[in-house]
Amino acid sequence: MRDFTFFNPTRIEFGKGKEANIGQYIKEFGVNSVLILYGSDRVKRNGLFSRVATSLEEQGITFAELGGVISNPLISRVRDAITVSKEKGLQGIVAVGGGSVLDSAKAVAAGTKYDGDVWDFFVGKAVVEAAIPVFSVMTLAATGSEMNPYGVVTNDETQQKYSIGSPLLFPKVSVINPELMATVTPEYLAYSAVDIYSHCLDLYFTASFLPEFTAELIENILKTVMRTTGMLLDNPDDYDARGEFAWAATMALNGNTFAGVEGNTYDTHMIEHAMGALYNVPHGAGLAVVLPAWMTSIKDHLPKRFERFAKKTLGVTGADVGIAKLTEWFVSIGAPVTFAQAGLSNDAVDPIVENAFGNAKLWGMEQMYPKERIAEILKLAVK
Amino acid sequence: MRDFTFFNPTRIEFGKGKEANIGQYIKEFGVNSVLILYGSDRVKRNGLFSRVATSLEEQGITFAELGGVISNPLISRVRDAITVSKEKGLQGIVAVGGGSVLDSAKAVAAGTKYDGDVWDFFVGKAVVEAAIPVFSVMTLAATGSEMNPYGVVTNDETQQKYSIGSPLLFPKVSVINPELMATVTPEYLAYSAVDIYSHCLDLYFTASFLPEFTAELIENILKTVMRTTGMLLDNPDDYDARGEFAWAATMALNGNTFAGVEGNTYDTHMIEHAMGALYNVPHGAGLAVVLPAWMTSIKDHLPKRFERFAKKTLGVTGADVGIAKLTEWFVSIGAPVTFAQAGLSNDAVDPIVENAFGNAKLWGMEQMYPKERIAEILKLAVK
Repeated sequence: MRDFTFFNPTRIEFGKGKEANIGQYIKEFGVNSVLILYGSDRVKRNGLFSRVATSLEEQGITFAELGGVISNPLISRVRDAITVSKEKGLQGIVAVGGGSVLDSAKAVAAGTKYDGDVWDFFVGKAVVEAAIPVFSVMTLAATGSEMNPYGVVTNDETQQKYSIGSPLLFPKVSVINPELMATVTPEYLAYSAVDIYSHCLDLYFTASFLPEFTAELIENILKTVMRTTGMLLDNPDDYDARGEFAWAATMALNGNTFAGVEGNTYDTHMIEHAMGALYNVPHGAGLAVVLPAWMTSIKDHLPKRFERFAKKTLGVTGADVGIAKLTEWFVSIGAPVTFAQAGLSNDAVDPIVENAFGNAKLWGMEQMYPKERIAEILKLAVK
Repeated sequence: MRDFTFFNPTRIEFGKGKEANIGQYIKEFGVNSVLILYGSDRVKRNGLFSRVATSLEEQGITFAELGGVISNPLISRVRDAITVSKEKGLQGIVAVGGGSVLDSAKAVAAGTKYDGDVWDFFVGKAVVEAAIPVFSVMTLAATGSEMNPYGVVTNDETQQKYSIGSPLLFPKVSVINPELMATVTPEYLAYSAVDIYSHCLDLYFTASFLPEFTAELIENILKTVMRTTGMLLDNPDDYDARGEFAWAATMALNGNTFAGVEGNTYDTHMIEHAMGALYNVPHGAGLAVVLPAWMTSIKDHLPKRFERFAKKTLGVTGADVGIAKLTEWFVSIGAPVTFAQAGLSNDAVDPIVENAFGNAKLWGMEQMYPKERIAEILKLAVK
């Protein structure tokens, strides 16, 4: 076991109808005015927005609202929201949506308490020293943002998909009601499953030390995601499967999988962020392309761990068979595993390499990932 | 998945030498004076106390000290500590020891901010509304107290072993340094293993709904404890095994095993607390006596879960074989599984039944556990 700090103060309110209590949860923190941030108008049409608004009104919490956050959320929209938040002197922010909305909300929370440009936090020019409290009502399970202090946002001018992080950005309370997630399309369910896989496998295959307990926890998350994805594609109204899927997503990135681990890095995310930044590929789709290629590129360095992965999570023998089986599963649930399937031309390889290498430099991974290596990995996904 | 709230704000500082930073951790909370609570003089002789004291002094934190907390800790000692804490107007408390010391510290934290008698919190006469901040440096892994808001203390006058609980009693920071645990006797290592098993199995075998993910998490904890106990009995200096054992203990009672679960109760603890209160049986020893008997008494009501337990955690088939195998393992690590082995005469059954029924009433379990049923279970352990 390597030394670690575990700290996660987010309160999760998990269950049916809990969004109707969001006003009460917010009031407990002495917050009297909030910005409701959301994505498409779907949350207005299906009544969720009005349930949240009613709950706030019942507690005497005033609110402003701003929609239009897109997948691969943009820093321009974050800046719009900061302007609203500052002008009205709002005391908190509620994200109603998926990971993109919540990630944006975290940036807004920090930006509201900062005089400079919020992008400074993403490029390491400033450290978050204050933030208004963040709350969330989740409509999609994938990113784990509901119980962690990170947010990923794309700068549409510089084509950089970068991240912000601070203990101040843990959501105070996140509502996870699996019923709100039942209308996700099969396509986005598949992308979500791959995103969770990637959070787990980036760690599982990069850790230089991985305690047995933590390895089993990760395998448990993977098996849960594979099992429940199948159940949900068969029956989108399976509440228990939806709930287990959502909780697995949360557990995959709330700190538990880091316990006692040494040396883990976010390799597939480093590469995928380039695809999202340049071509607006859905995050999970980009990861589905990168993950099997990346695994193929490293398998010979970690024969035991790949052997274990194949056996424990897929019931097969051997690294190659394991990777093939995982790839087959991605295909079977509708996730793209090649550039073409993800709608990318082969000419995209070089720009992605350039952009990803920028991420590698920012994350201190440029020694490990020179451009040649990134190119080799991507070429495995060009078929 | 059933509705649940997950909230656990305790920060864990896990690793070698982290006790030397305890003053810094405490200072972060603006605490300038503390009570150091401990058990035997061992922590003075082995230098741990002085490392903690030095760390406090370096941060300008003044302290008073009180030792003498025993296993099955007594409310009389808690009252002594509250007197010291109130007289000196101390702002926080640091437990240096195992679960008994930390459980006592939690009661002291609440009692310091309360005008009445601290026992009121244990019998439901008062609710904790304020507490001084609690910190811990753990020397034993077993109870999970380092990352939960509960404490169990025995009233030596009334012979009641009861509990206190409040979100205000989560430790702010707990230091888990596996090296500090390396000198535990084989006997207490076995008791600790059984305590962790009991925290898991009380839930596993009483939950009316147990999500697959949560069931696997519990099985992972059990397998980790069994594996690392064996490794530690062979080699007490195995740091990684010690670390995994400690983290499994924490994970067994920090809220993660409750996720999505319905209807769980603390059946073996309800019975064992009577043994501790009346005969000062070490907690883990009492549990080792009760657990196999209790499992035998309920196995026919839960054939599938017992089948699963046997297969997944012990690699055997059938409930009876599973219980026999677990019992054998308890014996093999030196835990008592009969009244005689625990130093109890058969005449102890009736008083234990009476006392345990008092616990059942306090916990609202008297319908499920009439005296006859408690007696039947205990008689399975009288051989």
